[in-house]
Amino acid sequence: MPDFQTWANAQQRRFEDVLRRLLPQPDMAPQRLHAAMRYAVLDGGKRVRPLLAFAAGELVNADIARVNIAAAAVELIHAYSLVHDDMPCMDNDVLRRGKPTCHVEYDEATALLVGDSLQCLAFQLMAEHRLNDDPACQLAMIKLLATASGSRGMAGGQAIDLASVGKQLTVPELEFMHIHKTGALIRAAVLLGAHCGNALDQAQLDRLDHFGKCVGLAFQVVDDVLDSEADTATLGKTAGKDAEHDKPTYVTLLGVQAARKMAAELHREALDALSGFGEGARRLRELADFIVLRKF
Amino acid sequence: MPDFQTWANAQQRRFEDVLRRLLPQPDMAPQRLHAAMRYAVLDGGKRVRPLLAFAAGELVNADIARVNIAAAAVELIHAYSLVHDDMPCMDNDVLRRGKPTCHVEYDEATALLVGDSLQCLAFQLMAEHRLNDDPACQLAMIKLLATASGSRGMAGGQAIDLASVGKQLTVPELEFMHIHKTGALIRAAVLLGAHCGNALDQAQLDRLDHFGKCVGLAFQVVDDVLDSEADTATLGKTAGKDAEHDKPTYVTLLGVQAARKMAAELHREALDALSGFGEGARRLRELADFIVLRKF
Repeated sequence: MPDFQTWANAQQRRFEDVLRRLLPQPDMAPQRLHAAMRYAVLDGGKRVRPLLAFAAGELVNADIARVNIAAAAVELIHAYSLVHDDMPCMDNDVLRRGKPTCHVEYDEATALLVGDSLQCLAFQLMAEHRLNDDPACQLAMIKLLATASGSRGMAGGQAIDLASVGKQLTVPELEFMHIHKTGALIRAAVLLGAHCGNALDQAQLDRLDHFGKCVGLAFQVVDDVLDSEADTATLGKTAGKDAEHDKPTYVTLLGVQAARKMAAELHREALDALSGFGEGARRLRELADFIVLRKF
Repeated sequence: MPDFQTWANAQQRRFEDVLRRLLPQPDMAPQRLHAAMRYAVLDGGKRVRPLLAFAAGELVNADIARVNIAAAAVELIHAYSLVHDDMPCMDNDVLRRGKPTCHVEYDEATALLVGDSLQCLAFQLMAEHRLNDDPACQLAMIKLLATASGSRGMAGGQAIDLASVGKQLTVPELEFMHIHKTGALIRAAVLLGAHCGNALDQAQLDRLDHFGKCVGLAFQVVDDVLDSEADTATLGKTAGKDAEHDKPTYVTLLGVQAARKMAAELHREALDALSGFGEGARRLRELADFIVLRKF
């Protein structure tokens, strides 16, 4: 069995081809919109959510063709949220994944439509490809993605984030925000991957969901630590922008040391949640390690 | 059987309650986002797309509870597109349905998230409620809505619209834009209503789709005529804005008389497409009349 980095690199390369195939081709009208959609999605990011979906898919021996679609849908939702988040009326950021943000490279109106179209494509893919032998289960998967993405999930977390600028939040309030803003979609990635294969019982799904919740929160805590320490070149996006925007982070609330400790505790809790799964959960465990120990 | 106006008013009132129930309640967190979502959707519009879905539902004796969901999903997509369309980076409009636009009443960032969340809610509703006895058919309905809304449908039409500012389009190019920008969702409304009830054969679905295509285009032609003639108070939105923004319309390309003639021809073609359906299609016929003969 290949080591984690070899596995992850292979998945990332393979997934890039999946995205290239699933995104509208750039020669198809409207060409500029389609080119901008591809610009916003391709050649970028660590693909953490897809990797979580692939790792969960391995746990249940899922058909990789099915996990590809679920992973792509989650990544398209993530990509749309970044495009909209970077716009002048939100974070007004000019750099993302080492490239000019979508509204800088194209224009604001195009970026708005890119985000709208990517979200729509995510649901289209989930509806038009076979993800589970049971179409009723597939409908439940679409509901899961929608719930994780909408006003009670990711988009709601962004609204709370906006409202928090300049405010003194408590750690539970910050946690509530991040469980929605980044956590919801990460949890969905794990569960959607797991729904593509052999059915798990509810207790197993609950443990996987708890794993996703811990990993999602750890991801954000580590992000805050890295954002407070790294420089822009290493990060591939504007560093220190949260502090600059007067946004509360785990580092500003807890300090770097306590934030690191919190990430370590979440890491432990995530691994504990997987304890009953045996060797099938190896990639999920390795991803938890990667998310907490990453340097960028 | 009640006359058309009585029927339409009753449906509109009833549907308003459906939307109030399906939208996130304003006391649920994040409250400001949920209040803004309700502001953008409730108490507004002629509900043309829902009425088309209800009329198509009557043709196939559909369970009204199912059509409610399909109609709400279509209307939420329409509402999100208006919120994003009105933003400063798009049409920069301050008035919609007689009220300040969402980004004026709230702020731009909230309006962006309102649109994102409304789109997401549309797909959530389509996945979590039973719309058809066959879950596989329901997946096809979700695909239909997504295709009509995305980069090859409504959002793509908006991209073409943006690209057309200041350009001299031909009538076929303008038609191509509107078939996407407004036509796709109107066609989807008719077909989704029809999929909620007794199954039609492919030839019948094709005729219904042709009806939807003609009505959708007629809707836009009439819109252009009204926009060129009415004042802002009657229209409930800023009048003459297309000409002001140097956007091509049927009126600027053809003149008012020829545009009126085109609407009348599309009206005739729409009614012809329904000729085999008998009395069950009465509301669809009346809606075609309403769309072409309306004064606002």
